[in-house]
Amino acid sequence: MGIVVQKYGGSSVSDASAIKRVARRIVEAKKAGNDVVVAVSAMGDSTDELLDLASQVSPLPPARELDMLLTSGERISMALVAMAISDLGFSARSFTGSQAGVITDSVHGKAKIIDVTPGRISDALGDGHIVIVAGFQGVSADTKEITTLGRGGTDTTAVALAAALEAEVCEIYTDVDGVFTADPRIVPAARKLDRVTYEEMLELAACGAKILHLRCVEYARNHNIPIHVRSSFSQLEGTRVSGSIDDLPVHTQGAPGPEEEPGMEQAIIAGVAHDRSEAKVTVVGVPDKVGEAARLFEALANAQINLDMIVQNVSAAATNLTDISFTLPRTDGQTAMAALAALQSVVGFDSLLYDDKIGKVSLIGAGMRSHPGVTAKFFTALADAGVNIGMISTSEIRISVVVDEDDVDAAVAATHTAFDLDASEVEAVVYGGSGR
Amino acid sequence: MGIVVQKYGGSSVSDASAIKRVARRIVEAKKAGNDVVVAVSAMGDSTDELLDLASQVSPLPPARELDMLLTSGERISMALVAMAISDLGFSARSFTGSQAGVITDSVHGKAKIIDVTPGRISDALGDGHIVIVAGFQGVSADTKEITTLGRGGTDTTAVALAAALEAEVCEIYTDVDGVFTADPRIVPAARKLDRVTYEEMLELAACGAKILHLRCVEYARNHNIPIHVRSSFSQLEGTRVSGSIDDLPVHTQGAPGPEEEPGMEQAIIAGVAHDRSEAKVTVVGVPDKVGEAARLFEALANAQINLDMIVQNVSAAATNLTDISFTLPRTDGQTAMAALAALQSVVGFDSLLYDDKIGKVSLIGAGMRSHPGVTAKFFTALADAGVNIGMISTSEIRISVVVDEDDVDAAVAATHTAFDLDASEVEAVVYGGSGR
Repeated sequence: MGIVVQKYGGSSVSDASAIKRVARRIVEAKKAGNDVVVAVSAMGDSTDELLDLASQVSPLPPARELDMLLTSGERISMALVAMAISDLGFSARSFTGSQAGVITDSVHGKAKIIDVTPGRISDALGDGHIVIVAGFQGVSADTKEITTLGRGGTDTTAVALAAALEAEVCEIYTDVDGVFTADPRIVPAARKLDRVTYEEMLELAACGAKILHLRCVEYARNHNIPIHVRSSFSQLEGTRVSGSIDDLPVHTQGAPGPEEEPGMEQAIIAGVAHDRSEAKVTVVGVPDKVGEAARLFEALANAQINLDMIVQNVSAAATNLTDISFTLPRTDGQTAMAALAALQSVVGFDSLLYDDKIGKVSLIGAGMRSHPGVTAKFFTALADAGVNIGMISTSEIRISVVVDEDDVDAAVAATHTAFDLDASEVEAVVYGGSGR
Repeated sequence: MGIVVQKYGGSSVSDASAIKRVARRIVEAKKAGNDVVVAVSAMGDSTDELLDLASQVSPLPPARELDMLLTSGERISMALVAMAISDLGFSARSFTGSQAGVITDSVHGKAKIIDVTPGRISDALGDGHIVIVAGFQGVSADTKEITTLGRGGTDTTAVALAAALEAEVCEIYTDVDGVFTADPRIVPAARKLDRVTYEEMLELAACGAKILHLRCVEYARNHNIPIHVRSSFSQLEGTRVSGSIDDLPVHTQGAPGPEEEPGMEQAIIAGVAHDRSEAKVTVVGVPDKVGEAARLFEALANAQINLDMIVQNVSAAATNLTDISFTLPRTDGQTAMAALAALQSVVGFDSLLYDDKIGKVSLIGAGMRSHPGVTAKFFTALADAGVNIGMISTSEIRISVVVDEDDVDAAVAATHTAFDLDASEVEAVVYGGSGR
């Protein structure tokens, strides 16, 4: 009998009837012979309602107290899920993050899990209970304070529990059928992926695919936990995230690797992701001296800002000045501009530019490693669609471009078509040899 | 610098503006030079809303999970109060019952506090913080499960914290000015008591005065914690609960004791309490054999039912059968009837009667110890008001009668007047010599 970890987000537990449906789903997994551990988010909009309450009593509430407040949300949903399971004749025990042994660092609001000590969970499973754990929360190792994990926290809780419990699979339940080749709202012909590697999923998540959070995928990859992303509204198979691109056959066209089923072909591209949540900052006229750029990025790091793409132009020989551009979450835009402005006299740059009317479009696929010409095809598709490219960034299995915010939809659709991802043209997008 | 413990109930923290007002009040106490520890209840009706949610997912939710659910209520209010204090420029730290070291037994829904280990509170006070503690909740000593204390739980939390921290006073904030000689809604001439002994307050609480819960007063008496019941809406002095009737001069009329101020007189009666929450059960025709009554009461005790008044008539010589009547909370009525019915064939009684159209009226006062004739005066007043007495029960400082539910108001008013408690007739009701 193996352990299955399931995760249900806020929309899956939005009200009493949704909670009852989730309870039936959980009980099915138990009836199938599994030990079941469930991580749940707060109900529907309850986190927003708590944030609204907080803003009514204080414009800038202390982070410690905000975590104390927000963690009540999962406490409510997990207790209700346990009750609903009990009502179906099965025994359930709910545990807070602290009780479940989710140990974090001390950064309130975006704590990182540093250890999981699931003694109470294991005991409860041993006693035959279904275990419900509050997602999104933990307790700090040194100060024993209640912490929250920030965005994607419940996904990360689920994967961390799966790793600590050596679960067979971590099922992430959501309101769509799985991971798609593009956002179906933009590309109606987008197709569900049956299987995707950790690296591709990481790139997809980093590039705006909202279905799984980056941290959760990183955690799963580091601990080799297979993730199954699926709909809580259907019994369909979703998307399985597992295996590394290093296990994929590099040259597959016309010559399937040993682990591939006959007739299957390694797809070049897993999907096209887009992201409208970023802004672009340009520091104009930075003296091209050793260490000047470092001072800028140090200031941004001290302000806890994660940068995404960074571009530095060659400096003009006449002035020995350079421009540095980078993208970052729009929500951090003000903080970043303030941190940089404070350095203007020290570093001696000319000016700061801020643009939040941008979007990022990314092409992701392990297959592009062995297929030259992907970049050219991508850029041609964008040019044919009349989309201008602002910044470019690449990794081994990804090409990202920054474009005008208004061009994002057209860029995604054109790219999806150019790489034969549209459902009407492609039978199946399947990855072979990706392990378990 | 002493420690002051304050308690705010749900109506005092019902919304953001109420929470801000409470925060200002707390900060005042801090500014006055005190270390301040606050126990808070859940906001307004939030506990009822959580109970409603629970009933939507399960008609009979497990007690453990119900406690997990309900404790989120105080978690929300305490974090918001801490935020509001922070917004006033003072530093506050909120703690759950578990974090505050409120150790209980394992009875979910009505756990008893068995110890308080306030290490984290003391540390936080030492660091200059105002401490906010979730009322109504704790953690069980053996199973480390989250528990709730049941009715009056936050009052009890406050007093228990005051005892463990050796506080100077435990201030219970409420929406009225203090403890009154009767419910002002029934007796408009009711007067606020400036001071009352623990024993009198115990009897008042046990007899239906809802302002303080019995358990809280018991805890305060056992640990000699002075309570100050006062309004959160005014700066008026409220009612101070402290001292024992054993410290009161027994014969005071015309001869003030050494600790009394000149001209003050020991009042005979502290107040008239009433209670419409009870029902009366009569077991008809119980064989008058040793141990038969014990079996009945054992069954009720096993069902966790607390009985109040118990009356057994002399058995009729011809039949050797007796009737046993008792009162109990109406909410336990069904459970009690079921438990007793299950014993009918075993014990062999004739039948069970159930009456929930009753009320209890109680006359309470330390002074009645030294004043014969109080009972006669009480009963005469009831007779003059046309009120029929159903059951009678007395203690050293209390006389209680069960009357028809519809007669309660008339009985309370007539008694209040008969004992010269009406505000227009009595200058002051003051207890002397009640200690600190």
